[in-house]
Amino acid sequence: MPPHEIQHLIASLEQLSFNFYGQDFLLTSEKTTDELQTVMKLADILRSLFVQNISTRVFDSGLAIAQFRDKSTRTRFAFASAANLLGLSMQELDEEKSQISHGETVRETAHMISFLAETIGIRDDMFIGKGNSYMREVARALDAGVQDGVLDHRPTVINLQCDIDHPTQSLADLLHLVHHFGGDPKNLRGKKIAMTWAYSPSYGKPLSVPQGIITLMTRFGMNVSLAHPEGYDLLEPTLAQAKAFAAQSGGSFQIVHSMEESFQDADVVYPKSWAPFWVMSQRTELLEKREHQKISQLEAECLTNNARFKSWECNESLMKRTQQGEALYLHCLPADISKVSCEAGEVSAAVFEKYRVQTYLEARYKPYVVAALILLGRFRDPVTLVDSLYRQGTRRIGR
Amino acid sequence: MPPHEIQHLIASLEQLSFNFYGQDFLLTSEKTTDELQTVMKLADILRSLFVQNISTRVFDSGLAIAQFRDKSTRTRFAFASAANLLGLSMQELDEEKSQISHGETVRETAHMISFLAETIGIRDDMFIGKGNSYMREVARALDAGVQDGVLDHRPTVINLQCDIDHPTQSLADLLHLVHHFGGDPKNLRGKKIAMTWAYSPSYGKPLSVPQGIITLMTRFGMNVSLAHPEGYDLLEPTLAQAKAFAAQSGGSFQIVHSMEESFQDADVVYPKSWAPFWVMSQRTELLEKREHQKISQLEAECLTNNARFKSWECNESLMKRTQQGEALYLHCLPADISKVSCEAGEVSAAVFEKYRVQTYLEARYKPYVVAALILLGRFRDPVTLVDSLYRQGTRRIGR
Amino acid sequence: MPPHEIQHLIASLEQLSFNFYGQDFLLTSEKTTDELQTVMKLADILRSLFVQNISTRVFDSGLAIAQFRDKSTRTRFAFASAANLLGLSMQELDEEKSQISHGETVRETAHMISFLAETIGIRDDMFIGKGNSYMREVARALDAGVQDGVLDHRPTVINLQCDIDHPTQSLADLLHLVHHFGGDPKNLRGKKIAMTWAYSPSYGKPLSVPQGIITLMTRFGMNVSLAHPEGYDLLEPTLAQAKAFAAQSGGSFQIVHSMEESFQDADVVYPKSWAPFWVMSQRTELLEKREHQKISQLEAECLTNNARFKSWECNESLMKRTQQGEALYLHCLPADISKVSCEAGEVSAAVFEKYRVQTYLEARYKPYVVAALILLGRFRDPVTLVDSLYRQGTRRIGR
Repeated sequence: MPPHEIQHLIASLEQLSFNFYGQDFLLTSEKTTDELQTVMKLADILRSLFVQNISTRVFDSGLAIAQFRDKSTRTRFAFASAANLLGLSMQELDEEKSQISHGETVRETAHMISFLAETIGIRDDMFIGKGNSYMREVARALDAGVQDGVLDHRPTVINLQCDIDHPTQSLADLLHLVHHFGGDPKNLRGKKIAMTWAYSPSYGKPLSVPQGIITLMTRFGMNVSLAHPEGYDLLEPTLAQAKAFAAQSGGSFQIVHSMEESFQDADVVYPKSWAPFWVMSQRTELLEKREHQKISQLEAECLTNNARFKSWECNESLMKRTQQGEALYLHCLPADISKVSCEAGEVSAAVFEKYRVQTYLEARYKPYVVAALILLGRFRDPVTLVDSLYRQGTRRIGR
Repeated sequence: MPPHEIQHLIASLEQLSFNFYGQDFLLTSEKTTDELQTVMKLADILRSLFVQNISTRVFDSGLAIAQFRDKSTRTRFAFASAANLLGLSMQELDEEKSQISHGETVRETAHMISFLAETIGIRDDMFIGKGNSYMREVARALDAGVQDGVLDHRPTVINLQCDIDHPTQSLADLLHLVHHFGGDPKNLRGKKIAMTWAYSPSYGKPLSVPQGIITLMTRFGMNVSLAHPEGYDLLEPTLAQAKAFAAQSGGSFQIVHSMEESFQDADVVYPKSWAPFWVMSQRTELLEKREHQKISQLEAECLTNNARFKSWECNESLMKRTQQGEALYLHCLPADISKVSCEAGEVSAAVFEKYRVQTYLEARYKPYVVAALILLGRFRDPVTLVDSLYRQGTRRIGR
Repeated sequence: MPPHEIQHLIASLEQLSFNFYGQDFLLTSEKTTDELQTVMKLADILRSLFVQNISTRVFDSGLAIAQFRDKSTRTRFAFASAANLLGLSMQELDEEKSQISHGETVRETAHMISFLAETIGIRDDMFIGKGNSYMREVARALDAGVQDGVLDHRPTVINLQCDIDHPTQSLADLLHLVHHFGGDPKNLRGKKIAMTWAYSPSYGKPLSVPQGIITLMTRFGMNVSLAHPEGYDLLEPTLAQAKAFAAQSGGSFQIVHSMEESFQDADVVYPKSWAPFWVMSQRTELLEKREHQKISQLEAECLTNNARFKSWECNESLMKRTQQGEALYLHCLPADISKVSCEAGEVSAAVFEKYRVQTYLEARYKPYVVAALILLGRFRDPVTLVDSLYRQGTRRIGR
C-alpha cells in the first residue's frame, strides 16, 4: 500500500462515528456498522504499518490475558501476535494450574488477574447458554472492580469465540470479502452468501461461526442464505437478528433446506459443519450433571444422525451452480477435506485446493482484527494515535 | 497521588538504610525493618507511577523465571505483572516439560536457566523442611556460578511461598495495613492482630501464611495473638522469632486456644485454615517413600480431625468481640466461605461480603511488592533510578 | 572484553563471506565454514554486548515460535533467552492445546502461526527419518506462503535438534573449543577429538549429538575419532560427510571400537550415550503402527543389550591415556554420572566433577549461538547492524 493510501485510510477513520473506549467486544450485533467498519479499517492500517516496518508498539508494558477453554491454534496465535504487535505480553490463565481448580469465583479471579492487564481474551464455546454469559460475568466483575476502586483501570474483554458468536473470525471473513470485492464494503450490497451446513465425521462443532456470519453479513446488505438439514437449527435470537439486520440494510435473509438451493447463484459460499442444536443443549445439561456415560451415548447418536447427511459436501458439481461457477469459498479452518483429512468431509479436495490460498489470506486478517479491537478499547483517540505512529515511522525491526 | 507526594516518597527512601543489591529475598525475618519499609515505599512508588501512566521499564531485555511447584493464580499473575512492568519476560520452568524429569540436578538446572535471567521466583510450599531449603540450594548454585565465572551476573531468588514464609503475601498484607491505618507504619504500634486458624473442608494448606504473619507483624510493634486448636502448631523457630521480634519492637506475641480470646479487642483479624503440623511432617515422609496409599489414609484422618473444629468460623458474632466490632478482616484468598464455596468454611458469607472489596485491595499490593523486590535486587542505586523514571515521565501507554 | 576487541571482532566479520538472509538453519553441513565462523563470531559479539550492558534489541515486536516435540530445559531456555535478547516474544506451539490434535496439516499450521513470526525453532529428534524432514516440510510451507502472497515476510526455521543434527549444541561445543584453544579456529587443526559412545541406563537417546560433532569438527581440521560398540552405528550419510569434510579440511575421521583406542592422545573427549540405530529404526516403525506393547519389548531388549557395555565409562584411568592426561571433557548435559545420577553411567563422578564447570561454560554459548542464528536470518546487513548497536550503546538495564 503506497503511503498516500495509508494517510487516506487514516483520514477516512475520521468520517466514522464510534465509541469503543473502555467497551468490551462480545458480539458484533451490539456494535454499529460504523464501528464494524472502524475495526476493519484499523486492521488494514495496522497491517500496512507492519508491512512497511513501522512500529505499532503503543504499550510500553501491560498484560494481554488469554483464557482458552477449548483448543485453538489460529485464535491463540492471532491473539498472541496482536498483543505482541502492540507491545503487550500474553499471559494465559490456565485453569488447571491456577487456584480456579481450588474453587475461586469468577468475580475473584477476574480481579486477581487484572491489576496490570489491558485486555482479556476469552474462548468459551462448548456449551449453549454458557460462553457469552461467562464473558459478561467477567465484564461485570471488572466494572465492579473499577467502581470499588480496586482496579486502577479496566481491561476490556474480547470474545475469542463463544456459544453465540465468533466475532474475530467473522470480522476477518468480512474483511476478506471487502478486499475480494474491490475494497469498499458498499460493494457487498446485493451479493449472495451461502452459509451452509456440511458433513463432517466429527461431533459437536460450535454454532458460533454460522451464527456470527448470518448476523454480520446481513448488516452490509448481503443476501444471506442459510441451509442445513432438519435438526441443525441455529439459536433463535440470532435468526431473528439476521432477519432484522437484513431488513435494515436492504439485504435479505432466508433459510433453505439444501445446499443446491443455497449455492444457486451465490457469490460466496461458506460450507461448514456444526452440531445439531438439541445435541448441544443435551450435552450442556449432561455435562452439568457429570453424566459422562450418557454423553458418550449422545455422541454416538449424533454421529449416526450426522451420517445421514454425508451428501452435504461442497464439491465441484455444487460449485457450478454458483455465480459463473466461481463463487468465493470461505472457511474458518481447519476444514474436513474428503479423502484428505477424513473419508468424507465438508469439502472435496479439488474445491478446497482451488481456494486453499484464499482461505489462508482470509485467516491472515485475524491478528490485525484482534489488534484493532485491543487498541480501540484502550485509547480515547485512536485516529490521532495511528496517525502519529505513521508520522513517527519508528522502525519495527532494525536500529 | 499528587506529584509532590511521589517526590516526597522517593525522597523518603533516602532516609532508609538497605542492602538489597545482589541479595535474595527468602524470608522477611532476614531483612531489617528499614529494608522492609523500603520494599513497601518502593511498591507504593511503582504503583503511583503506573497510575500516572509513567513507564517503569528499567530492563530492555531479560528473563524473570518462575517455578511453581504448586498451583497459583494470584502469585503467578503478580509475578508475571511485576516482571512485565519492569520490562522482563516471564519464562516458566515447567518440570514436566524439562529435563529435570530426566534427572538434572538442582545445581545444574540453576545454571542452565540463568545465563540471561534477572530473577528467579520460586513457589515450593508443600513439604516441611523442603521449600526454603530448595531455594537456598538454587541460591548456592547461583553463587557458585558467579564465582566460577559461569554466570555473567547473578539473578536473585525471590520466595513466592515456601514451607516457612510467604513474604510477598505478608508484605502485601502489611502494606494494606499501613494504608488502612493512615499510611505510617508507626501507627501499627500497639494494634492487635488475631492470626487464627479457621476450619476448612480442605486438607493440607501450607503453614507459610500464619508463620509469615507472626514473624512480620511483630516487627512493627503490633500485638500478635495466634490461636489454633491443639495439634495445629506452627514451626517452632517461627514462634521463637515472633517472640524475639515482639520484644525488640515493643509489641507482643501470645498463643491462645480459642478464636474468641484471640478476636477480643483485635484491630485486625486473619482467620485462615492450615494443616496440622504432624500431618505435614508425615506427608512429607510418605511422599518421599512414595507411599501413596498411606497418604490417602492420612488425608482421611486429617479431614476427620479437622471436622472436630468446625466451630472455628469467623462470623458476625465473633467479629462483635473485636475493636468496636469493626476489626479489619484479612485473607490471602481464596477463602473458604460457608454456604458459598463450601458447606462450612473459614468465614461466614456475611463477614466475607462486608470485607470482600478490602481483600481485593489487599491483594492489589502484591504485584508492586514483587516488582519492588526484583528492582531492588538488581540495581545498586534504586533511589536515583526511580527518581529518574519520574522525571523522564515516559508514557507507559500511548506514543 | 575491552572495547577495541569488540570493534576488532565486528570488523573481522567483514572478512567472512556469508548468505544467511532468509535462509533456514537446518544442518551445519549445509553451511560454509565461513558461515559457521560468522555464527561463532556474532555469538561472541552478542555476549560481549550483553556483558557490557549494551542493548541488542533489534526487534521492536515479533514472535519467536518454539515447537518442542521432546523434553528440553537448556535448549528451551536458550531459545527463550535468545529471542528475548533480540526483542522477540517466545510463543510455544503446544500440539496438545492446538487444533493440530484436531487434524491440521503441517502446511496449514505453518501458515497460521507465521503471519507475525520472525523465526520458528523446532525440536523433533525422536524418530529416524522424521525430524529433519518435518522441518523441511515446514520450510516448504513457508516458501509457498511467501510465493502465494500469504506471508508478508518469511520467518526462518532453526533446527533445535533433529534425527540428524543438533546444530545449536555442536556450534556451542565448537565455540567452547575455539576459546579453550586460544580463540582462533585455526588452532583446532590437528587436534584430536574422541567422540565416543558411553553406557547409560537410559534408553533411546538421539543420535543427533554424535552426528553433529563428527560432521562439524571435521570441518575445522580436527582429527575425529568415533568409537562405539557394535550395533551403535550412526546414520551412514553423516559418516560419509565426516570423511569428506576431513579430506577437505586436512583433518581425519576414523571409526574405532574401543574407548581406549579413541581416547589415546586425544585433546578432547566427548563420551555420550546414544541408542543403537536398529532400535531407533524399529521404534520409529512401531510407533507409526502404534504397537505400544512391542515398543516396551524393544525397550527391554535394548536395555539388556546396553548392559553388555557397562564398561564404556569415561573414568580417570581412561583419561590418563589422553594428551598429558588432560584432555578437555565435553558433554551436552545432563550427563549420567556413575554413583551420582545412576548406579553406572557415562562418566565417573571424579572425572565429571573435574570438568563440571567447563561443561557449564560450554552450555553458556548456546543462547548466543541461537541469537546469532535468529539475527542472521532476518537482517540483510548484520555487520552494520551490530556495529550500530555497539556505537549507540543503549543501556540494556537501567534508564
